[in-house]
Amino acid sequence: MNHEKWSKAEKAAAGRAFENAYERECREIINKLRVMANQADDSDDVWRVHDFLAEKRKEMDDKYDYRYSVLILVFARLLREGWITADDLEGLKGDKIATITEMATR
Amino acid sequence: MNHEKWSKAEKAAAGRAFENAYERECREIINKLRVMANQADDSDDVWRVHDFLAEKRKEMDDKYDYRYSVLILVFARLLREGWITADDLEGLKGDKIATITEMATR
Repeated sequence: MNHEKWSKAEKAAAGRAFENAYERECREIINKLRVMANQADDSDDVWRVHDFLAEKRKEMDDKYDYRYSVLILVFARLLREGWITADDLEGLKGDKIATITEMATR
Repeated sequence: MNHEKWSKAEKAAAGRAFENAYERECREIINKLRVMANQADDSDDVWRVHDFLAEKRKEMDDKYDYRYSVLILVFARLLREGWITADDLEGLKGDKIATITEMATR
């Protein structure tokens, strides 16, 4: 498979899908953060929130890698995890979508 | 000045004062955390909360140093910053209280 070529239109579509997924996942982090913050009662709870966010930051930095050489893999993972749907991939060429969709089921 | 000697009763009183200050300051961090969490709207806001907590953790680790060799200085700072009051120092010997109170005004 060679999906290293991305047209200008594909790059724009990929950028949107990527950003949407990132913000959706951050939205879920915000929801968890709010619950933790509102239930926090002592110092242990505060540092538990810190550790949660530190872990999420690392996880997000690792996951959201916008290099075209790995983007197919990234999208497959985001699709598998539910941060994007097939609709978000509109604008990519059919062979890329097929590869992403197929890899997402593995 | 030589305040390195702490009786068993003084150690117990110092421990209580120290713990109370720590939990009070954490309480204020929790209050700020809740405001930030409840106002958070996007990814930038999430990482801003992370950075706030990371900074606070470092600050608290530096400040709350429970070695008897530095405890007078620590209490002076906590008194100056309002995390303890003179009442919290009850149980310490008079000369220690006098030194802490004097240093807190500097």
